[in-house]
Amino acid sequence: MTRPAAVCIVSGGLDSVCYAASLAANDGYDLYLLTFVYGQRAKREIERARFFAKVLKARDHKVVDISFMKSLYGRSNALTDNRQELSRDFSQSLVVPVRNAVFLTIATAWAMSINAKVVAYGAHTGDIPHYPDCRPAFVNAINEALNIAESDSIIAGKRQEITVLSPAVMGLDKPALLKAGYKVLGDKIFQTWSCYSDGVRAGKKYLHCGSCESCINRKDAFTTARIEDKTDYATESRSKRKGKAKRDIH
Amino acid sequence: MTRPAAVCIVSGGLDSVCYAASLAANDGYDLYLLTFVYGQRAKREIERARFFAKVLKARDHKVVDISFMKSLYGRSNALTDNRQELSRDFSQSLVVPVRNAVFLTIATAWAMSINAKVVAYGAHTGDIPHYPDCRPAFVNAINEALNIAESDSIIAGKRQEITVLSPAVMGLDKPALLKAGYKVLGDKIFQTWSCYSDGVRAGKKYLHCGSCESCINRKDAFTTARIEDKTDYATESRSKRKGKAKRDIH
Repeated sequence: MTRPAAVCIVSGGLDSVCYAASLAANDGYDLYLLTFVYGQRAKREIERARFFAKVLKARDHKVVDISFMKSLYGRSNALTDNRQELSRDFSQSLVVPVRNAVFLTIATAWAMSINAKVVAYGAHTGDIPHYPDCRPAFVNAINEALNIAESDSIIAGKRQEITVLSPAVMGLDKPALLKAGYKVLGDKIFQTWSCYSDGVRAGKKYLHCGSCESCINRKDAFTTARIEDKTDYATESRSKRKGKAKRDIH
Repeated sequence: MTRPAAVCIVSGGLDSVCYAASLAANDGYDLYLLTFVYGQRAKREIERARFFAKVLKARDHKVVDISFMKSLYGRSNALTDNRQELSRDFSQSLVVPVRNAVFLTIATAWAMSINAKVVAYGAHTGDIPHYPDCRPAFVNAINEALNIAESDSIIAGKRQEITVLSPAVMGLDKPALLKAGYKVLGDKIFQTWSCYSDGVRAGKKYLHCGSCESCINRKDAFTTARIEDKTDYATESRSKRKGKAKRDIH
């Protein structure tokens, strides 16, 4: 029997990779992974997304370049406008207008084309307070709009109705999501990339900075999930080295 | 006083250009035109879209390349899959999955970024029977989803709620739309490009084929609107030449 197909938006980060892993292992979906390229930071993220496409035995992995969006967003937000400083705490300047709507609509075009049943993205309950496009109300509304857009072919049996899913819709927070991903992926989970920065170069490797908001959320989630965090953080490497030096002296 | 801004999706075709012209002249909007590039046919259409951006004194015109969509659509439809024949009458194979949802969502990202009030596209009442994503029910649903996606920043007064408009929503059919456009543009309206094919070369010019479904709809609309059709059609040029030859003989 063929397994149902799910188009999963994966950035190469912890949330989206763990959710895709869980959909494949626990819910029996064949994975079709979709990664969006922006221009900045993309190189490292894409490399991780490609790695997980292999690990998760994805049926297909498309990497699509939507860096033209930067020209539309202009100065509307700090994530796509390098001239603005990234704030350390949540700020409206971090909200990229209707970003998840753009992602989910393009993903649905693919899902409708291959008769996938599900379109998934990695928003979890921790994203809900600040990001309206991570809330179930948004998911319900875009889900309805996209199926209406294809209603004739769905009724005719030519295409399949899609359901938009996310950890937030399923009531999962970041630590719960991480636990689910860890069960499937084991230590490979530490190959995901969370850092807002391009990382800190250490020889041939790049380390998570360890001090940006996203790195801090990553650490906290591992602590809450009671999973030993084997991520290489630049800050911790430094403090570990310092600690070791001290121990050597004393 | 500044005029409200409208992001208008224009292909360079009759419907979208006439609607943009009407929004500027009759409804007082400043125009921000958005043209999507697919790869095929695009050259001729973009050239016409650029021409009308100047004629309509658009405040900005963005041409964005989403030809990656072809790789997602695969064999799902004949418009983006060159291996399939284009049917002459309406067929489900002509429906590109959630195409207008992709267009409108990207357009809304721009609209939210520049505080535009309106996002417009050229669907008219004649498109309603065959294309669910041209129907008011779809427009209402996507409109709601996109505003929910930005609800926090709208409530905070940082961004403006958008309204998706189309001739179909306003109850306009193709001839009515054409009349509205003709009032603003006069004979420049014949510079729009409707032909499904890349046109028929005649010296340095390209003529509308005159025989595809889209050319036939164009002709019919001019007839119904009682506007003399000054479009150069390849078929008519041939029949005109034949007619002339006959008259020369008799």
